[in-house]
Amino acid sequence: MESTNKTIIVFSGDLDKAMAAFIIANGAAAMGDEVTMFFTFWGLNMLRKPEKVKTSKKSFLQAMFGKMMPRGADKLGLSKMNFGGMGAKMMKLVMKQQNVTSIQELIESAREQGVKMIACNMSMDVMGIKEEELIDGLEFAGVATYLNEADQSNVNLFI
Amino acid sequence: MESTNKTIIVFSGDLDKAMAAFIIANGAAAMGDEVTMFFTFWGLNMLRKPEKVKTSKKSFLQAMFGKMMPRGADKLGLSKMNFGGMGAKMMKLVMKQQNVTSIQELIESAREQGVKMIACNMSMDVMGIKEEELIDGLEFAGVATYLNEADQSNVNLFI
Amino acid sequence: MESTNKTIIVFSGDLDKAMAAFIIANGAAAMGDEVTMFFTFWGLNMLRKPEKVKTSKKSFLQAMFGKMMPRGADKLGLSKMNFGGMGAKMMKLVMKQQNVTSIQELIESAREQGVKMIACNMSMDVMGIKEEELIDGLEFAGVATYLNEADQSNVNLFI
Repeated sequence: MESTNKTIIVFSGDLDKAMAAFIIANGAAAMGDEVTMFFTFWGLNMLRKPEKVKTSKKSFLQAMFGKMMPRGADKLGLSKMNFGGMGAKMMKLVMKQQNVTSIQELIESAREQGVKMIACNMSMDVMGIKEEELIDGLEFAGVATYLNEADQSNVNLFI
Repeated sequence: MESTNKTIIVFSGDLDKAMAAFIIANGAAAMGDEVTMFFTFWGLNMLRKPEKVKTSKKSFLQAMFGKMMPRGADKLGLSKMNFGGMGAKMMKLVMKQQNVTSIQELIESAREQGVKMIACNMSMDVMGIKEEELIDGLEFAGVATYLNEADQSNVNLFI
Repeated sequence: MESTNKTIIVFSGDLDKAMAAFIIANGAAAMGDEVTMFFTFWGLNMLRKPEKVKTSKKSFLQAMFGKMMPRGADKLGLSKMNFGGMGAKMMKLVMKQQNVTSIQELIESAREQGVKMIACNMSMDVMGIKEEELIDGLEFAGVATYLNEADQSNVNLFI
């Protein structure tokens, strides 16, 4: 029987795309599929702890990237109509009114359902993000690991 | 023999990405493949009827989203170089000069070729889009339906 | 045994997304997979020669698109935090500091590893890009060719 594993590359750091990625991941996990999410570039931001964390030394540029990028899922903006954060606030409010699961709950649920969450270590180097700045329960790997997972999956998305 | 079904998640509401999605969908349908397009978030906008439609009650935020988002495929902008709509106008003009099928014709052709078009009902709730505001011939479903279709397909794209 | 071919549609013309596409393509090629990259819309820009090339006649709009779009991989911006090119410069600098392969080296490596690079001829018509303006070693084809490749692959991404 063919595998029903799924992989999702989460490249984007937008709230709306993060929602889409985690809704698919949770849905597939609920149906019994093995799901691997591979977070790279801006996608890493949703895995950052909300508080500032003391880390090993960063270069000037890495520190600057770190300061400018959103810290955690609660800080993400929308890919469209963000209006300096107003759009994201509006969308979160309307999602609450419609009883749609929040992004934080979706991430938590993915972890509880055993979704494998991998942070791309090359992107972490470029953006100067250290392991201790990210939430717990992650694995750290590169493109070869992604490709191995994708080869064993029947649905592979880039978001 | 392996399935040659295709699924495309149309998340983006940009004219250029909509063109890409429908060109792939129509191409695959013409080659005899079963194609399912799953429209979610901004991708729903291209399915809106161009005229204002009287609907059941919306919340204030839903009504606001509805007003701000483009109504129908003719109103989409470009993902790059849109310049307040000028870029989209330029691209539509040059596509006409080059005899490239318009987005409206591509949507029509997809329907005629039997491409299954599903509007994501969770996104509709969030954005306050009602069934009566969307063009005819759609189905309405959620992530489980998408995953079932994807499991039976050999190419699954997120656009 | 199932095919391990890969296809990547490179729709985006952003430096960060181009990096992601070529890192995956090179990684897969290094593991012995056949890889096809299909460049369409803004993705064509990274294949442009950096110098202005004398071409056959373009329409006014095509010439305008050609002038406004980046010429070659060195001119790409970031999808986020580009700040008129500053962001891309910062990222290139930090990538150098971290010994990450540059986009130009990634493209060169993909060619050397035999990655098949196809430029979408419909997009070339729309954007008025001529074969002589693009780097060597490309093939030129349309959606049917893409779909044939995708049908023979086990991982198909849209970037």
